[in-house]
Amino acid sequence: MKIEILAVGSELLTPSFVDTNSLELTRRLNDIGLDVARKTIVGDDIGDIVACVREAVRRAKLLIVMGGLGPTEDDKTREACAAALGRPLLYRPEIYESIRERFLRRGRGDFPPSNAKQAYVIEGADVLANPNGTAPGQRLVEGGCEIVLLPGPPKELLPMFEALVWPRLLERGHGSTGRRVLKITGIGESDVETRIAGLYPPSGPLRLTILSSLGQIELHVAEFSREKDAARFPGLESLATQLRDRLGDFIYSTAGEDLETVVGRLLKARGATLACAESCTGGLLSGRVTSVPGSSAYFKEGFVTYANEAKIRALGVPADVIATHGAVSAEAAAAMAQGARRASGTDFALAVTGIAGPDGGTPEKPVGLVFVALAWEGGIETHRNVYIGRRDQIRFQAAQRALDLLRRRLSRPADT
Amino acid sequence: MKIEILAVGSELLTPSFVDTNSLELTRRLNDIGLDVARKTIVGDDIGDIVACVREAVRRAKLLIVMGGLGPTEDDKTREACAAALGRPLLYRPEIYESIRERFLRRGRGDFPPSNAKQAYVIEGADVLANPNGTAPGQRLVEGGCEIVLLPGPPKELLPMFEALVWPRLLERGHGSTGRRVLKITGIGESDVETRIAGLYPPSGPLRLTILSSLGQIELHVAEFSREKDAARFPGLESLATQLRDRLGDFIYSTAGEDLETVVGRLLKARGATLACAESCTGGLLSGRVTSVPGSSAYFKEGFVTYANEAKIRALGVPADVIATHGAVSAEAAAAMAQGARRASGTDFALAVTGIAGPDGGTPEKPVGLVFVALAWEGGIETHRNVYIGRRDQIRFQAAQRALDLLRRRLSRPADT
Repeated sequence: MKIEILAVGSELLTPSFVDTNSLELTRRLNDIGLDVARKTIVGDDIGDIVACVREAVRRAKLLIVMGGLGPTEDDKTREACAAALGRPLLYRPEIYESIRERFLRRGRGDFPPSNAKQAYVIEGADVLANPNGTAPGQRLVEGGCEIVLLPGPPKELLPMFEALVWPRLLERGHGSTGRRVLKITGIGESDVETRIAGLYPPSGPLRLTILSSLGQIELHVAEFSREKDAARFPGLESLATQLRDRLGDFIYSTAGEDLETVVGRLLKARGATLACAESCTGGLLSGRVTSVPGSSAYFKEGFVTYANEAKIRALGVPADVIATHGAVSAEAAAAMAQGARRASGTDFALAVTGIAGPDGGTPEKPVGLVFVALAWEGGIETHRNVYIGRRDQIRFQAAQRALDLLRRRLSRPADT
Repeated sequence: MKIEILAVGSELLTPSFVDTNSLELTRRLNDIGLDVARKTIVGDDIGDIVACVREAVRRAKLLIVMGGLGPTEDDKTREACAAALGRPLLYRPEIYESIRERFLRRGRGDFPPSNAKQAYVIEGADVLANPNGTAPGQRLVEGGCEIVLLPGPPKELLPMFEALVWPRLLERGHGSTGRRVLKITGIGESDVETRIAGLYPPSGPLRLTILSSLGQIELHVAEFSREKDAARFPGLESLATQLRDRLGDFIYSTAGEDLETVVGRLLKARGATLACAESCTGGLLSGRVTSVPGSSAYFKEGFVTYANEAKIRALGVPADVIATHGAVSAEAAAAMAQGARRASGTDFALAVTGIAGPDGGTPEKPVGLVFVALAWEGGIETHRNVYIGRRDQIRFQAAQRALDLLRRRLSRPADT
């Protein structure tokens, strides 16, 4: 079944617009084994829209037209579709009344007469109700092509697609898709590629995609089953197991979770508490830990000790450690972690100190140099890293390393 | 001049892909008064690509084809364009040699023979050098249409567009565009709309766009001038002045800066220092302040006092303030700000305490309730706010409010 999407609107051809609608529609179609063959984006010129509709109707079995159904001068999808198919537009007073009522109910003042154009329906089309806006959708058949017209705003389009378009497509789909996202940190993309070499499935129902972003890598596994609404995806399970064998504890989640969520769950499971001491990350690490709902159960306190005096006073970092080794040193990181743990009385404390740049680097201590430390009852560990990138990228990677240090320690079965 | 973009690649029709290439190309074209009339995204089916090229060549004066020039089986743009135009592909040994050399220089092992296909050029086409990858681009003319083939990866495509396509388009453009971004906080979108009513320019060279996001609103002003490389945009200046008159100190930047950057500049100009005490924002506020390069000049310390014991010990919040009014109260916020200022010895201190949710709300203190305080030598101010949204949205808005409180105080001419 050949499917095409036609997105209408001159704003879609300007640089500030990202078309999220068709990403979402494509995902839902792919899930049941339907592919989008072509996507066209066209401006508000009625001649251009007419041409696009005419061409697409000749090629496609399903054409989804999005946008251009509103009340303004620029909204020409209704008129263009009618012209492309050589059908009249019919005025439907009951639609006019429902738009008018909706408008007046919201107390927005006088009802603009321009809204009347939204009450016109292409001859032979069914009306698709829009519970979140004024412009209704339409559905009609021309030759061998089903045409669906939907309004452009995502909060109107997506619920309408789910409720009125999707259920009918389910019957025409070929099956269902299972998905699994493995998240990895502490290893580079090329090392991951080397480790999983030979596991890429040949083209077929099972797919493996690697997505690399800052400080983490995602492996997306998807399996398509010809069974509609399949309960099991054996190829996906087997591939996920092999990936786990190859990547071991570099994998921090097999369910697509954030690193901070995983760390939070591990802390909670032990009934353990955490404090953070930060210099170069400036609050980002505590901010990530506390972004998780319910984190107050384990996170007690963060010390953003940017100034050296704060490191000394709040964390008890000895002044001579800073004088001898510098504030960016393994010794300072260790003292910060131990001081944070002591001051807050927590089971664990993480510390980060480094040079996030763009200024402040020296030949011995370049921009990107970061020391990370973890203190617990049994001891202390520190790690030296040099990250590449902009200030925000260095900061994110430093926080990521700190969280991963804690994850690895919490994942050990025996000792703390 | 009718311009079309054709993006080739089945991956572009999957949900994980966002087409940033054409956003950037569109921006550059718009800047000189050239509009994109149509954008088409097509998969790797050679018949579909041939059809797209044939149709577009009939309509457009310039067709930019992106992607599908690589060495793999899926890369069919070269073959499809040749077929669509009825021209042969000619083998160019010098291209083969340069691809081979580039490959071997990078020490990636044996040269895969599949790379040979990248050495074929459509008859009559000029070769466009690709300094950042193997696949060269091509440029040719068919009838009245210029066709440019560019590789898909942004880091290859964008530099080639800038160096080889853009300079020639400049001559065919109609002028240049000036842009200004005003950033606003502390007022809702509908209030902004009411205040600027009547200032929207009629359709013409001057454009005003409102973009609303979490806790802030952007007004984008753009003026197109028929003069190429115009130095002045008088309509833009005049509209920006009127917008400033209407919106006053709700505007925190007329140069598109972040609120934390503006606050940092104001602190630096005074030689003043800052500390932050945070509960519900959990480090986000300090994290935003320290995201600005050079912030160590004014930011001294952050206290992420999540637990009540931390508020009492680190900030000296009186235990009976918490017992009487609760940790989420104007009294607690004020005590936190004063305590942070006292402990860190800074000129200013901001404090935030609230309920970010999703749990922890009560009828008297619902999720989204946030108290923000600012302490300075002359005194203290506190504000109560109730934000709507998810946990991350409530936290961002709370930090935004705190930063704006400081911005407003620092913007006063006379007292501190």
